[in-house]
Amino acid sequence: MKRKLSTGLLGYLILSVWMHSSLFAQSKKRKPAPNIIILFCDDMGYGDVGVYGHPTIKTPNIDRMSQEGMKFTSFYTGSPACTASRYSLLTGRYPVMSGFGWVLYPKSERGIHPKEHTLAEALKEKGYTTAMFGKWHLGSTKKEYLPRQNGFDEYVGLPYSNDMLPPKWPDIPLLQGNDTLELNPDQTKLTELYTQKAIEFIRNHKQDPFFIYLPYAMPHVPLHPGKKFAGKSRRGTYGDVVEEVDWSVGQILETLRKNGLDKNTLVWFTSDNGPWLIKGADGGSAGLLRDGKGSTWEGGMRVPSVAWWPGQIEEQSVNGELTSTIDLYPTLLSLVGGTVPTDRLMDGKDIAAYLFPKKNRNVTTKPFFYYGFNQTIFAVRKGPWKLHIRTHSQLKVDYFNKELPLLFNLEEDPSEKYNLAKQHPEIVNELLKEIEAQQQRVAGNPDFYTLSAH
Amino acid sequence: MKRKLSTGLLGYLILSVWMHSSLFAQSKKRKPAPNIIILFCDDMGYGDVGVYGHPTIKTPNIDRMSQEGMKFTSFYTGSPACTASRYSLLTGRYPVMSGFGWVLYPKSERGIHPKEHTLAEALKEKGYTTAMFGKWHLGSTKKEYLPRQNGFDEYVGLPYSNDMLPPKWPDIPLLQGNDTLELNPDQTKLTELYTQKAIEFIRNHKQDPFFIYLPYAMPHVPLHPGKKFAGKSRRGTYGDVVEEVDWSVGQILETLRKNGLDKNTLVWFTSDNGPWLIKGADGGSAGLLRDGKGSTWEGGMRVPSVAWWPGQIEEQSVNGELTSTIDLYPTLLSLVGGTVPTDRLMDGKDIAAYLFPKKNRNVTTKPFFYYGFNQTIFAVRKGPWKLHIRTHSQLKVDYFNKELPLLFNLEEDPSEKYNLAKQHPEIVNELLKEIEAQQQRVAGNPDFYTLSAH
Repeated sequence: MKRKLSTGLLGYLILSVWMHSSLFAQSKKRKPAPNIIILFCDDMGYGDVGVYGHPTIKTPNIDRMSQEGMKFTSFYTGSPACTASRYSLLTGRYPVMSGFGWVLYPKSERGIHPKEHTLAEALKEKGYTTAMFGKWHLGSTKKEYLPRQNGFDEYVGLPYSNDMLPPKWPDIPLLQGNDTLELNPDQTKLTELYTQKAIEFIRNHKQDPFFIYLPYAMPHVPLHPGKKFAGKSRRGTYGDVVEEVDWSVGQILETLRKNGLDKNTLVWFTSDNGPWLIKGADGGSAGLLRDGKGSTWEGGMRVPSVAWWPGQIEEQSVNGELTSTIDLYPTLLSLVGGTVPTDRLMDGKDIAAYLFPKKNRNVTTKPFFYYGFNQTIFAVRKGPWKLHIRTHSQLKVDYFNKELPLLFNLEEDPSEKYNLAKQHPEIVNELLKEIEAQQQRVAGNPDFYTLSAH
Repeated sequence: MKRKLSTGLLGYLILSVWMHSSLFAQSKKRKPAPNIIILFCDDMGYGDVGVYGHPTIKTPNIDRMSQEGMKFTSFYTGSPACTASRYSLLTGRYPVMSGFGWVLYPKSERGIHPKEHTLAEALKEKGYTTAMFGKWHLGSTKKEYLPRQNGFDEYVGLPYSNDMLPPKWPDIPLLQGNDTLELNPDQTKLTELYTQKAIEFIRNHKQDPFFIYLPYAMPHVPLHPGKKFAGKSRRGTYGDVVEEVDWSVGQILETLRKNGLDKNTLVWFTSDNGPWLIKGADGGSAGLLRDGKGSTWEGGMRVPSVAWWPGQIEEQSVNGELTSTIDLYPTLLSLVGGTVPTDRLMDGKDIAAYLFPKKNRNVTTKPFFYYGFNQTIFAVRKGPWKLHIRTHSQLKVDYFNKELPLLFNLEEDPSEKYNLAKQHPEIVNELLKEIEAQQQRVAGNPDFYTLSAH
């Protein structure tokens, strides 16, 4: 069976039939399901990419990726902070399910629960070879918590954030599999290292269906551009590291093209949370969105997001629907003919119909919950409406907490300026009920893993 | 002589030679200089277009225009207010030269000085047929101040802003040439009317070199979308009117393509000033830029700007250099083989080398002065550095006026957050000297027209 797909919707139709056919199960060599690559930035804000409006950061590769694919304008992370966001991406579940509150530190003794079923594990079950190059941040360095034990055949990267280093913290290992390659590695080489590893992996696995998860260390502080990028961007050091990430994106797409894999590979570019505004010029920009990292205002959780699969995803398409990293797990599983676990609460939804619109297929929409610190719901969005029941900002500015709850129409007012709670008490009530229902759902969940108890 | 140009830089080279050759002067039929169309929005902010980062306003036509041409990310209007901005676009001069302070009202008795030499007059002298469809706003309805007497062969439009209507103001005429077609016209039909007039004009002048200046009434308040657009945008009524402008842009580019004129026509899309923030959801967004209309903060004067000339301007190009509407006059004149007047102060610079980069050609850079109300310099930019000596906001928020002057590096800090005046006193002094020199230059100018004296 040839893996090359015919283009357009017909291709997707054939793909869908193939995936559910016995042919698929019997195929020993090549499967028609796409390779999958997730490129995941650290602390890149909504406004830090050319096609998302930044005036001086040059991102020609991400811009081109967007022009060749689909740009999402209302795409959320699972959390405005690192660990919780990564958990959501890899499990399709809200961070409250994890037992993690927010961010793990090197001295934390916890980690992702062995019973969690990561996207990598799910794809392995469907015959994928899996690799991860980059920042993990889902547990201590205890073996069971590391990527190799959680679905990844290969791993090179740092277990924590790139600001968790001596002297404040213990030595940080650069891991290969479960082994330490070196301690406290030179951060200026990380983006290039992860890119090279991904390129090698692609070249070595042209015949397999493969999954690569590439969570960059950058543009998280401390900013460490590679030698070729340092001092090159008009946007200063922050621009340097984003432009190096953009270079990396270009290298990976070019490797796919050169190896004839571009028509067989779905690449998804996004970020783990909004910009770290308290870092001044070393932090990014949320564009027209309010606040940044750590906050459940839009700037904390709405991020750039581009999906690329030439011949399958329509060029120059823009999608403004409510979407999230928690949707990637069920969406990618549906693309490869898999199903999500049924023995636990799953939160994401299958958004494949947005990628490949067909009249007879729709996305089942759901409200989206903004989980802030302490595994707490701070806000909910349903359609265009967002209700804040709590707010928080690392900037320590007055956000009218006395006026809570706050209601915004995000489609008409993406900057969350005009509180409409008094004008629409019925919508406030409807959204309060959604929050109550979600809290009940989680509280009554028998497989709600609390890692502190683990 | 065939008008169709070969593509790329070679085409531009040939064009340049032609334009300065006797062949050009002798040509009776078709000239190799391009048709020129300026599409000019009213109060559209930096963040109100898809490729400038708006999440819910759909602008597929402007986005495509940007992908087929050049997107400017540091392009300024001549003023943060309407009349003064339009004066600058049409004369290549700062608003202080006009004698206009800021905005003319229907009861104003003044208008553009007869000695001013508009872009339309200059292009007519080079053999262009000229037309204007839209908002004039450069004088009272006294005949000598109207478009027909200032270089435009054809005119249909309103002489003032679309909010200058009864009962507060006298009746506003929809003019055709110097005649009144009707009073207080239905504003929901204006975008379509101007678009149709432009399309007809293109079809009727396929053989001429032509210039069209199309200053839309929208998205200035009161917002009046056409019937097909009302209620259609996710961004509310503001989105409706911007999406109708986007439709208009698409119609005009498509007319050029259908008539085989796309390779012979330079189209420039931009806005007269930033968003009118005090109008709430009826005003637009400056994206990541600070403040809006009426202010010399970036949000008041930096606007979306796209130049399109297939085969001549490189596709998918992004230009972040300091550029402005005052540069259009000298740039367009240089493209058509004309020269700027030498009997008066001219402020703009020729930026053709940005459009058609060649190694042996450079743009002569100049500082840019931000003129606020009362013909006063509020700020200056030179390279990445901007110095504010005064600030003003219609929002009446505290902008640290006590800390003036304020110095920002706009390339590293486009949102003007981090005042670096204390760190760089030498740059502050250099920029203060530039302001002093500009004030001397203007004060000593013998042909500084004061329209109040006229």
